[in-house]
Amino acid sequence: MSVFNDLLAFQRQTEALSSVAERLGWDQETVMPRGAVEQRAEEMAAMESVIHDRRTDPRLGEWLAAAEPQDEVGARIVDLIARDFSRASRVPARLASELAKTTSLAQGIWAEARANETPEDFLPTLDHVIMLKREEAAALADGGDPYDALLEEYEPDTTAAQIAQVFDIMRPRLVGLRDDVLGADFQPQPLTGHFPQKTQLRLARICATAFGYDWTRGRMDVAVHPFSSGRWQDSRITTRVVEPEPFNCLYSTIHEVGHSSYELGIDSDYAFTPLGRGVSMGVHESQSRLYENQMGRGRAFTGWLFNRMSDAFDGLNIADPEAFYGTVNRVTPGYIRTESDEVQYNLHIMMRFDLERDLITGRLDTDDLVEAWNARFLKDFGVAVDRPSNGVLQDVHWAVGLFGYFPTYALGNVYAGCLNAAMRAAVPDLDDALAEGDAAPGAEWLRENVHRHGSLIPARRLIEDATGGPIGPEPLLSYLEEKFARIYHL
Amino acid sequence: MSVFNDLLAFQRQTEALSSVAERLGWDQETVMPRGAVEQRAEEMAAMESVIHDRRTDPRLGEWLAAAEPQDEVGARIVDLIARDFSRASRVPARLASELAKTTSLAQGIWAEARANETPEDFLPTLDHVIMLKREEAAALADGGDPYDALLEEYEPDTTAAQIAQVFDIMRPRLVGLRDDVLGADFQPQPLTGHFPQKTQLRLARICATAFGYDWTRGRMDVAVHPFSSGRWQDSRITTRVVEPEPFNCLYSTIHEVGHSSYELGIDSDYAFTPLGRGVSMGVHESQSRLYENQMGRGRAFTGWLFNRMSDAFDGLNIADPEAFYGTVNRVTPGYIRTESDEVQYNLHIMMRFDLERDLITGRLDTDDLVEAWNARFLKDFGVAVDRPSNGVLQDVHWAVGLFGYFPTYALGNVYAGCLNAAMRAAVPDLDDALAEGDAAPGAEWLRENVHRHGSLIPARRLIEDATGGPIGPEPLLSYLEEKFARIYHL
Repeated sequence: MSVFNDLLAFQRQTEALSSVAERLGWDQETVMPRGAVEQRAEEMAAMESVIHDRRTDPRLGEWLAAAEPQDEVGARIVDLIARDFSRASRVPARLASELAKTTSLAQGIWAEARANETPEDFLPTLDHVIMLKREEAAALADGGDPYDALLEEYEPDTTAAQIAQVFDIMRPRLVGLRDDVLGADFQPQPLTGHFPQKTQLRLARICATAFGYDWTRGRMDVAVHPFSSGRWQDSRITTRVVEPEPFNCLYSTIHEVGHSSYELGIDSDYAFTPLGRGVSMGVHESQSRLYENQMGRGRAFTGWLFNRMSDAFDGLNIADPEAFYGTVNRVTPGYIRTESDEVQYNLHIMMRFDLERDLITGRLDTDDLVEAWNARFLKDFGVAVDRPSNGVLQDVHWAVGLFGYFPTYALGNVYAGCLNAAMRAAVPDLDDALAEGDAAPGAEWLRENVHRHGSLIPARRLIEDATGGPIGPEPLLSYLEEKFARIYHL
Repeated sequence: MSVFNDLLAFQRQTEALSSVAERLGWDQETVMPRGAVEQRAEEMAAMESVIHDRRTDPRLGEWLAAAEPQDEVGARIVDLIARDFSRASRVPARLASELAKTTSLAQGIWAEARANETPEDFLPTLDHVIMLKREEAAALADGGDPYDALLEEYEPDTTAAQIAQVFDIMRPRLVGLRDDVLGADFQPQPLTGHFPQKTQLRLARICATAFGYDWTRGRMDVAVHPFSSGRWQDSRITTRVVEPEPFNCLYSTIHEVGHSSYELGIDSDYAFTPLGRGVSMGVHESQSRLYENQMGRGRAFTGWLFNRMSDAFDGLNIADPEAFYGTVNRVTPGYIRTESDEVQYNLHIMMRFDLERDLITGRLDTDDLVEAWNARFLKDFGVAVDRPSNGVLQDVHWAVGLFGYFPTYALGNVYAGCLNAAMRAAVPDLDDALAEGDAAPGAEWLRENVHRHGSLIPARRLIEDATGGPIGPEPLLSYLEEKFARIYHL
């Protein structure tokens, strides 16, 4: 046991340091003075250097070889440390450092190119990032599929081939639903009016509380791009306010409460071990989506929200809860993934998944990316991209080297579909509670079946165990088709 | 040069990590969710362990032996790293760890004993802390004076004997002034009224701005005990609000602006080197005191403040600026150091200095501390301590192992007295600006003569260079005697 305990003690400190680095990132996005950019970059680099040295410390190799875990929990801890050690050790230090430097610069170049609508200013840098990511993928893959090697970072138990199979089923059904909805005679009314920031933030707090956010272990601040940060005893959320669009603030908040609730719901015995965090990005996103969409945008909760918003904003331009349900779930044509709705969101992901797979495997050159993007968008969305910021320049992910990340968003939706079906069967009175502004019965089911396990159970088995069946897109597709048929009177 | 550069690069990363640890401390005292205490303790311990390993890294010894700095700046950097390395290396890891654990627990025990007025519950723990500090002092002193060895941590260029000499001059003059003031026929009127938190904080921001606080490199939050935190591009201040006592909030703010301005005024070339921070606690306190007292509580600035407060609080119970000057500077009998005034503050420090020197050198047993405290308080203040929380239990310092720290407060006042005399001579129109709510001419003189040097020039030489004369208590004593003679019509 002593080698295992040495390994665990070392890992515990590494996890604590990673937690500090994450808190530093939160600070930067929420409260840091704007003049502190260079200092923070140097602080982050120092933290990352220390953490990287620990993740590749040769003693880890020795401990991992000699560790004799006594049970399933111990064995999983050893496996997860070994996976991380192996991945970190395969990437040469020179490449890791060049990737860090290049992607750090690329973010600024991307932002400027997006602002100026000049993809040509960004593509050479993107090409450099892609070359480095190909090299990294080859090092990680060790002869296997390079894209899968990148995907493993975010979704360890799934291959690109599995994802492609699921997406192939989803695409025609979603395109069909989208066309039906956009062509429907009945169209829900948009929300209009004046929605002061202060009132939005007050309502956001009420919504977070409705979804069971634990304020003794978290807090809410405003950030440019909402995110959640941290785990165990300290998982903070952020939201944003766009004054004319209060749903932006409220549903961002509920989404982040979903992420935070997952982390806060993990068995505290796993804290500062590799078990003490969400098992994959897909499972993570399934929780935020379940909170935001299947619970938050359902008829029951939106009925409650209608009354809260009517009170807070002194009346709305929407007549009643049923009409409001349509307003919340309105589908409109648009170019931007992050502004998209439940029907179209996955179509955005699918095209990014195909394009980035081709970029990493070399089937697509960076030079041809804009053309490929625009052709694919026209095909899937029936609209021509009008400008680069509405097209290939809209997302930061590729600039910062996040290849293999996009599909986890759609996978999260698929998992959310499966989990929602099982949760509704297990908690038949969930909508009664949601209609009273209380998501606790749903949150409890998710804590019991998903959250508390942390990373103990691999992602796919976790979802299968929770839902009692194989994972597939059918529950999500049925849910969407039924929901939008009702709203659009199809 | 290459060894020197290796040393510098290593140190730079250590400084960045220390800066992160300090930011984590700020987070804990201002924004951290209250349920995150255990997690934060583990994060801090991990940071401290990494930083301690670096401060005692054997490579430092090799680099220090071989480094050939090319100039005065490089030589001072090497000296400061060497001093820190030598101090850190002299304390056995076992002792450092036991001290950290014991003082961490002692803080809670002290707080409870203070709340319950039961010194007997705290004294055994304090005795343990003192035994460990004696051991640490002996290890650090290497045959020299043990108290000086502890003092060196906070005030590297000064000995206890030098301080005692200064204090011996100050004591009778301050006791005399205190007696005159408390016995005077004229007594300034206290401020009474309703002072809402929000208005206090708005005024505190106005005061911080008046003293030149750089909001692009800082921010202000509320904390239980005000402090400032950080340097270079990110030095944050905190304040507190006691609703019936607005001077508490306003002067805490100005005090912390003094500390932060020092750090923010350091030459940015020194950032993340040992030169990039205030040179000693005494010099640091001199800056906060100059801002708070010599500038902030002067007739000129309080005249401006009278108008601001009259506007903000819709009138005051004080008739005019001249009467308000007395109100701000009122001297009343009291037991508590932190609530004390310019006349009595140093008397509080002097008794702690004598007591802690005796505790460390073994001339005083912990068992006899309460009696010694109470006897000394009666002698210096003419009043018997009424309860332990007003006596020996009032300060946290000894519980957390801060021996050698107290005298730097009074030394700061002495330095502030010297600097104020020089500043007034060099900036004759300073009061004209302060009367307009603008401390910039004073802040600029201090930046030029003190702040920008960081730790380049040792503390005593820095003050001597800035003031053009030897350091002594006379300027402070004359300033106090003149100021309070006017206010109290002596």
